[in-house]
Amino acid sequence: MKINGVSYRTIWLAADGAGVEIIDQTRLPHEFVVITLRSSAEAEAAIREMWVRGAPLIGAAAAYGLALAAREDASDAGLAAAYQRLHATRPTAINLKWALDEMIAALTPLPVGERVAAAYARAAAICDADVAQNAALGEAGCAIIAALWEKKKAAGAERINLLTHCNAGWLATVDWGTALAPVYKAVEAGIPIHVWVDETRPRNQGASLTARELNWHGVPHTVIADNTGGHLMQHGMVDLVIVGTDRTTRDGDVCNKIGTYLKALAAKDNGVPFYVALPSPTIDWTIADGVREIPIEQRSTREQTHITGKAADGTLVEVQLSPDGSPAVNYGFDVTPARLITGLITERGVCPASREGLLGLFPERG
Amino acid sequence: MKINGVSYRTIWLAADGAGVEIIDQTRLPHEFVVITLRSSAEAEAAIREMWVRGAPLIGAAAAYGLALAAREDASDAGLAAAYQRLHATRPTAINLKWALDEMIAALTPLPVGERVAAAYARAAAICDADVAQNAALGEAGCAIIAALWEKKKAAGAERINLLTHCNAGWLATVDWGTALAPVYKAVEAGIPIHVWVDETRPRNQGASLTARELNWHGVPHTVIADNTGGHLMQHGMVDLVIVGTDRTTRDGDVCNKIGTYLKALAAKDNGVPFYVALPSPTIDWTIADGVREIPIEQRSTREQTHITGKAADGTLVEVQLSPDGSPAVNYGFDVTPARLITGLITERGVCPASREGLLGLFPERG
Repeated sequence: MKINGVSYRTIWLAADGAGVEIIDQTRLPHEFVVITLRSSAEAEAAIREMWVRGAPLIGAAAAYGLALAAREDASDAGLAAAYQRLHATRPTAINLKWALDEMIAALTPLPVGERVAAAYARAAAICDADVAQNAALGEAGCAIIAALWEKKKAAGAERINLLTHCNAGWLATVDWGTALAPVYKAVEAGIPIHVWVDETRPRNQGASLTARELNWHGVPHTVIADNTGGHLMQHGMVDLVIVGTDRTTRDGDVCNKIGTYLKALAAKDNGVPFYVALPSPTIDWTIADGVREIPIEQRSTREQTHITGKAADGTLVEVQLSPDGSPAVNYGFDVTPARLITGLITERGVCPASREGLLGLFPERG
Repeated sequence: MKINGVSYRTIWLAADGAGVEIIDQTRLPHEFVVITLRSSAEAEAAIREMWVRGAPLIGAAAAYGLALAAREDASDAGLAAAYQRLHATRPTAINLKWALDEMIAALTPLPVGERVAAAYARAAAICDADVAQNAALGEAGCAIIAALWEKKKAAGAERINLLTHCNAGWLATVDWGTALAPVYKAVEAGIPIHVWVDETRPRNQGASLTARELNWHGVPHTVIADNTGGHLMQHGMVDLVIVGTDRTTRDGDVCNKIGTYLKALAAKDNGVPFYVALPSPTIDWTIADGVREIPIEQRSTREQTHITGKAADGTLVEVQLSPDGSPAVNYGFDVTPARLITGLITERGVCPASREGLLGLFPERG
């Protein structure tokens, strides 16, 4: 998508054909800094330290991480060790493992001498496939928005109000985004759309990233506290919710940024459609019950007790929010049961959040 | 309650018998500063700028504000003007109007020359009544906790886990608190209790005030993001919820800090008891349907886009969270429908959240 009129992806090959360039998302929204990753260790740091984040982008970064690792040691043992190190960077995102498995499957049959070039080619293909998936998903989601807009317009509304949680925008993918791909497609289609942006504590990816990318691309939006969505829904100020997901079970339970479950409950209570946008690599076909089976990552409590923002002099300053001596806990995700979800938006279309629904779109998994 | 072993109230008469001392709650949790209010204008500022906050404490501060106003001009016109100015400081809290009405009713029949002394006496009585109410409410809520603890203990649990939102602790009242009064009573009764503290964005009264007072008093607690409660409830980590309220309708709908509704939905979805603690002046007997009838205060968007915390050098620094150019909105409260509430804890005991329930405890309102 565009930054002040210039098209960008979130990850791309450097001009030297070896390094991998990313946007340091920990510096957003206040600073725009591009970092060149030159080793697998730097790629690991990029994922672990969340310079890149969002399930699809983590997958793309891991793929390029394995390409950088192949430059260092393309032997079976070298790739296996890099796989382990990259896999250990983040525990929840299923795309990480998916991309690493794709890379290993592509490289292992090849002679060692051919693996570096093949690794870069496969990583690039994973990126392009993500872009194509998200564009297709965006079209499917845009059809939902367009149908809703026809109804709202006929009733005299001036715009569609969509609520989203966390960042499942183009900054979370290689391009287009997942939850926001339908929004960008709706903008392209000329539908007047306004986005309620949950700030999304801890880490504030909504206020930092979703607001940043909507702002860059020129999409009307308003930042709200995570506590606010229920009130807006009670008063008819939300027409639909679309969120992303880090992992979806074969029965349609959705693991996403902590707090998604609360918004889904409010949507259900107020008759607001609640959709989840997911490229199919986010589906974990091995598990059914999300609440019981998905391990929830506990992140550093410092993300809860402290926050970084821009001080009056323009510098980035980290400040402490809680009193000294008060413990905190930081669960990164929660699970929204399928029963609260109106539909799943995939690159193959929209389906109910159920085993039957997913198998209808992905019969090869039956 | 206690600050490092010393008992405090949140508002008290200065040694000169005229000034009114308060804790500047905007400096919490990092600094403990006492301010002496010496005029009605300073009392207005204290309420408007939230040096004092919490419905019962706002009422107490407004009462003392009218006493300070009586020192300036105790005529009918002077008191009426002060009433208007004090009433305009915060739009939502019903206690504000209640306390001002109590004061005017006590003073108007008196000769002007007797009004100052009577005003201080009436304000002190309002404060003492609040303390007595909250202590009684605490006993009623403690009985709920004690009954739950007997069951949990028999099942092998090591503690009761209570979740609360915002600050309805002693810092929100004159003493004891409302939602936290049962917690302090449970601690007195030797019940092992741990409190999940929603940080409560915007303004962070949970992380700043609830954590601060529990920490001072020595009550085990953990600060969490507002997004976290649903996940904890899904996993059996919350035994009950108790929140406060700024205004309760005669049918039992509860207006409280934005986000309360979302926690009530999660409690309902997981079979977790959800209680609201309210001293009876918080009940607005004139309205029934909270969602339709209670006007929701919109506060400065700067509370959403910026936050103040303690920098590494110990100074308090305000930092900007959202990107430049991204609008925000800041609704201060939401309404939790009575259907989601297990019971209302009052100074007269516990009742269902319904007209019949409230009239059972307050038959004089029938």
